[in-house]
Amino acid sequence: MYIALVGVSGYSGQALYQLLLNHPGVEGIDLYGHLRRDTEAEQTLDIAALNIHTKITAFDPATIMAKDDVIFFATPAGVTSQLAKPFIAADFPVIDLSGDYRLKDPASYTKWYHKPAAPAADLAKATYGLAEFENPTSHYIANPGCYATATILGTAPLLQSGVIDLDSIIVDAKSGLSGAGKKATDSSHFVHINENLQMYKLNEHQHIPEIVQELQKFNSDLKAIQFSTTLIPVDRGIMATIYAKATADLTTDQVQALYETQYQDKPFIHVSATEMPDLKRVVGTNNCDIGVSYNPATKTVVIVSVIDNLLKGAAGQAVQNFNKLFDYPETTALPTTTLGF
Amino acid sequence: MYIALVGVSGYSGQALYQLLLNHPGVEGIDLYGHLRRDTEAEQTLDIAALNIHTKITAFDPATIMAKDDVIFFATPAGVTSQLAKPFIAADFPVIDLSGDYRLKDPASYTKWYHKPAAPAADLAKATYGLAEFENPTSHYIANPGCYATATILGTAPLLQSGVIDLDSIIVDAKSGLSGAGKKATDSSHFVHINENLQMYKLNEHQHIPEIVQELQKFNSDLKAIQFSTTLIPVDRGIMATIYAKATADLTTDQVQALYETQYQDKPFIHVSATEMPDLKRVVGTNNCDIGVSYNPATKTVVIVSVIDNLLKGAAGQAVQNFNKLFDYPETTALPTTTLGF
Amino acid sequence: MYIALVGVSGYSGQALYQLLLNHPGVEGIDLYGHLRRDTEAEQTLDIAALNIHTKITAFDPATIMAKDDVIFFATPAGVTSQLAKPFIAADFPVIDLSGDYRLKDPASYTKWYHKPAAPAADLAKATYGLAEFENPTSHYIANPGCYATATILGTAPLLQSGVIDLDSIIVDAKSGLSGAGKKATDSSHFVHINENLQMYKLNEHQHIPEIVQELQKFNSDLKAIQFSTTLIPVDRGIMATIYAKATADLTTDQVQALYETQYQDKPFIHVSATEMPDLKRVVGTNNCDIGVSYNPATKTVVIVSVIDNLLKGAAGQAVQNFNKLFDYPETTALPTTTLGF
Amino acid sequence: MYIALVGVSGYSGQALYQLLLNHPGVEGIDLYGHLRRDTEAEQTLDIAALNIHTKITAFDPATIMAKDDVIFFATPAGVTSQLAKPFIAADFPVIDLSGDYRLKDPASYTKWYHKPAAPAADLAKATYGLAEFENPTSHYIANPGCYATATILGTAPLLQSGVIDLDSIIVDAKSGLSGAGKKATDSSHFVHINENLQMYKLNEHQHIPEIVQELQKFNSDLKAIQFSTTLIPVDRGIMATIYAKATADLTTDQVQALYETQYQDKPFIHVSATEMPDLKRVVGTNNCDIGVSYNPATKTVVIVSVIDNLLKGAAGQAVQNFNKLFDYPETTALPTTTLGF
Repeated sequence: MYIALVGVSGYSGQALYQLLLNHPGVEGIDLYGHLRRDTEAEQTLDIAALNIHTKITAFDPATIMAKDDVIFFATPAGVTSQLAKPFIAADFPVIDLSGDYRLKDPASYTKWYHKPAAPAADLAKATYGLAEFENPTSHYIANPGCYATATILGTAPLLQSGVIDLDSIIVDAKSGLSGAGKKATDSSHFVHINENLQMYKLNEHQHIPEIVQELQKFNSDLKAIQFSTTLIPVDRGIMATIYAKATADLTTDQVQALYETQYQDKPFIHVSATEMPDLKRVVGTNNCDIGVSYNPATKTVVIVSVIDNLLKGAAGQAVQNFNKLFDYPETTALPTTTLGF
Repeated sequence: MYIALVGVSGYSGQALYQLLLNHPGVEGIDLYGHLRRDTEAEQTLDIAALNIHTKITAFDPATIMAKDDVIFFATPAGVTSQLAKPFIAADFPVIDLSGDYRLKDPASYTKWYHKPAAPAADLAKATYGLAEFENPTSHYIANPGCYATATILGTAPLLQSGVIDLDSIIVDAKSGLSGAGKKATDSSHFVHINENLQMYKLNEHQHIPEIVQELQKFNSDLKAIQFSTTLIPVDRGIMATIYAKATADLTTDQVQALYETQYQDKPFIHVSATEMPDLKRVVGTNNCDIGVSYNPATKTVVIVSVIDNLLKGAAGQAVQNFNKLFDYPETTALPTTTLGF
Repeated sequence: MYIALVGVSGYSGQALYQLLLNHPGVEGIDLYGHLRRDTEAEQTLDIAALNIHTKITAFDPATIMAKDDVIFFATPAGVTSQLAKPFIAADFPVIDLSGDYRLKDPASYTKWYHKPAAPAADLAKATYGLAEFENPTSHYIANPGCYATATILGTAPLLQSGVIDLDSIIVDAKSGLSGAGKKATDSSHFVHINENLQMYKLNEHQHIPEIVQELQKFNSDLKAIQFSTTLIPVDRGIMATIYAKATADLTTDQVQALYETQYQDKPFIHVSATEMPDLKRVVGTNNCDIGVSYNPATKTVVIVSVIDNLLKGAAGQAVQNFNKLFDYPETTALPTTTLGF
Repeated sequence: MYIALVGVSGYSGQALYQLLLNHPGVEGIDLYGHLRRDTEAEQTLDIAALNIHTKITAFDPATIMAKDDVIFFATPAGVTSQLAKPFIAADFPVIDLSGDYRLKDPASYTKWYHKPAAPAADLAKATYGLAEFENPTSHYIANPGCYATATILGTAPLLQSGVIDLDSIIVDAKSGLSGAGKKATDSSHFVHINENLQMYKLNEHQHIPEIVQELQKFNSDLKAIQFSTTLIPVDRGIMATIYAKATADLTTDQVQALYETQYQDKPFIHVSATEMPDLKRVVGTNNCDIGVSYNPATKTVVIVSVIDNLLKGAAGQAVQNFNKLFDYPETTALPTTTLGF
């Protein structure tokens, strides 16, 4: 197959490019630019660490649909919805890593992203691609957000089971700096965030409505979740620590059983109750490791869900969706082991 | 005054020594060893970074009480309660940085510390030295734990005010590695914890009963708190993120007012609602910075309380207690500014 | 092929295991223990990050030679030379990651390693496996040291060309903590090395005689090199900064030409004169990136040579040697791209 | 005394402000802005970590000379030389942390700084304030560069003694990120430099001519030094590793004696031959720790010189110069101890 990739300059785009380079079903990857400076002339991109010198071609839908078999967008929110329209209209396969097609409600998108939303008809067509739960029902995949992936995988079994108070869910997430993007800002300056922790976008993170929308599929009575996130001085990795009050007495074994049942045939999900997972178990892989515990003193379930934000939280899950869409084995080209230390 | 210091080899002991060196009321600091290898012979301690070559003398209560005016114990839990008995019996001033005299209930101590407790009579005599709330009622100060300091300062105003559901308090704490002690272990190995996060002692941390005991002074109906802590790859600093459900509608302004009223004349406490404090605001100081917020969508109060675990969480608060005990201005020899970056 | 691997618990052993798991020519990997606690009973090893539960079997040469086709030793210096004797005697293929068979002179080994040397006859048989320069002349490969790999690859073209003063070579190397081993020590404690730099083993590092011995193959007049190394607060990566005085006027272009000629058909070596390589270009790969420069003001050639100490500096080069020994393409199972950032 | 400070927003300016706040001779600090946006209106500066709300006043020389007793410039290179003219003309005391008055030769300044130089007459008046070697001969102090401070203090005793080959000096320096300034750039992005090393400005660093000019005071035959520097992932600290060839046989003891003689009465300099200093011995202090060693195998002297770039390398040395200029004890308000770990 031939791949079109738009947005290779960001972290997710580079991770995606690297994964696809090693995919046995991929015969070629064509890079397309979406900025005006790209369309004016062909450019040579030197992806230094890949030791690859390749060209970015001006973005042109007709050319792409003629030459390639699928298009990945690793573009910022607000950009994809402008670029993807002709592909959706033509039912050409699209996998979008941005947030532009995740929320079904355009008003909610505008509220949380502070940008114009995609047309409601296009939103309705997209499959929300949390690959453990959804099979593509269209050629159009909205790849989930990084926090949303860690949080939904860590919370869904509790919701389905009905063992927790729906108003009690609190998610204290932590993320490495690659999650905040490649742009140099005061808050991504090494001297600011090294040896530091910084809570940000408290109650305003755009993954909150995405998480609620998707968790409602498991229990439609869910109204809201308390979600906070803190930047930590590491390159990669998300830890979502999830708290919920039990509605009746539970045991850690019972909680573990819920999760193991849910994820028994999912190759990337590992459940443990004996020790809580750390980031290094998953960074460099497409895995989501989940630790579960119940505290009878406070009637609280504590879940720790960890992923690599660039792989399972972005490019890895995009390839997982690609595999499902085109009938490759789900784990093709996706790392599942790491040194871990 | 002449100071006796036992346990200078640990992080807290070194921080204490450095602070006391710069205290205008301190005429001399005598270092005493408590291990058998110290008592067999005098030793020369080379505190490299202090460029100071000094001697550790064998621990002998009679000598100390003759020569010094106060004794600080920066010894591990289980050690102080063995060494402090003659000082308590003689009503000689003691400031203890270990957990040995914090819990009033010996059975609770034994349950959480897995060691024999100090005599109940000695426990009864000690003042729990959270310096913003307690004035010394005896010559014996139990200096608070680091997590307990950040958590109690961050939670007490909510409990006094009666605006939250007492069963809903969740503390997600994060701590740098100096909080885990100087001993080389697999979990303190650089390659293990660098670029990583590691939750530990889930529901088993020995500061949990200390926090509950002290918070009950603000509201005796409190039964338990959900407390978790995660090691983060930084040297110093604790962030306690505190969540609690409101019993009625609140605003961030109302929450802020509660905290500002509580701490208006406390020189080390700074309250903010406009941005959440980061670790670098406080590392290197004796401050506790507190950020407050209310989320109407989930009826949840979110509090972020940050301290330097070695200063306000240990040696700094010990000097603050020393200042109060001996009528020095509370801020004497305690840093309140930092570069912060 | 079936692989025997001794010493999977260290960083190099784990990296080797992970690489071999993905090697298309490897049908199975048998893990063998060399410590007494391993030989007393079979053990189950939980390689957490690999999500693999596997057994370590007691080390028995006869069993191994019957069952497996090659043995890798990822054991400490001083251990391999005890264990490898029967394999060498039987001309069974061995790839050794320790330093036990690198130095041809037993007296030199004893001087630098402070341990008894392997028999001189065994030393004579081993091929020093710097894969860019050596083809296996025996079934016995002494895999090079990490500092030696970075330094020799960065220096050899200068020696062959005769353009530098042989007495002037100075190597200022820097290494991440995984190079110092998995054992928890005061110097590997996070709080010691984080935010720090620490020069160690000045003029006493055991890779010095290895480097000199191998560089003498390029110019037999070389007598010594000045080599220092400094631990840096990163997990992985070595940077060797190499200085040498030119014997006649040079240009950066001339130096670059020397290196490009030397390495033109070497898939893992990349030479650049426009910018000096950083660690992130190579960590996670088997590459060695080399930057070259000439300073006419001081008549000094400056070379920067970077590798991943666990891959090109250990496990990766071992697999490269395995590929050469058994006629697989040299790059089989060896990563050459990384995100880099 | 009343202090005027221009440029408080950078790292050096903030460090200077913090030190001066604790200086017993300082009655007040007035902050002045030098940018157009500062001169249009008075501004309130919230130095968050200092918990201080203070005003920046428009820069006006006449006002400053009337109100204050000395002016510190913590402004970028190229700015001070524009602002300082009236102060120099009036012989008003100036301490400049930029590089604008360090080089005596205007042509050299223009070559290395790529900016117009200050007038030669002004350059001639300035005292180069390496406080261990120079006493102020004018009211105008050019505070040394950070690399220059570490390098000159580490090299001068060798030059005075005549024991080394003047053409052989090689300095391999390493610096934390605060040395590269507060501006957010691609190279200061956390994800770029964390877990990385990056050599920069090879043979082009503007401290090279400063070092040569000053070292020539110790031996006028010196022509050039080879100087390289590498960014390391820490906040603060410089390590200059210095190599030089001996002209005759030496011993480490002899080298140590040279340094101890040179620095015997200098309160901030500590010399050691038993172990090489690490960064944490000096970060947070105004010290320069120097480790010395001689390698007979290569006839090479190896010196390791470490400082805190923001203190001894900038603000601390500026206060040291202030102390000398106004006859305060040299160590006033300057930290000499640290936890070190």
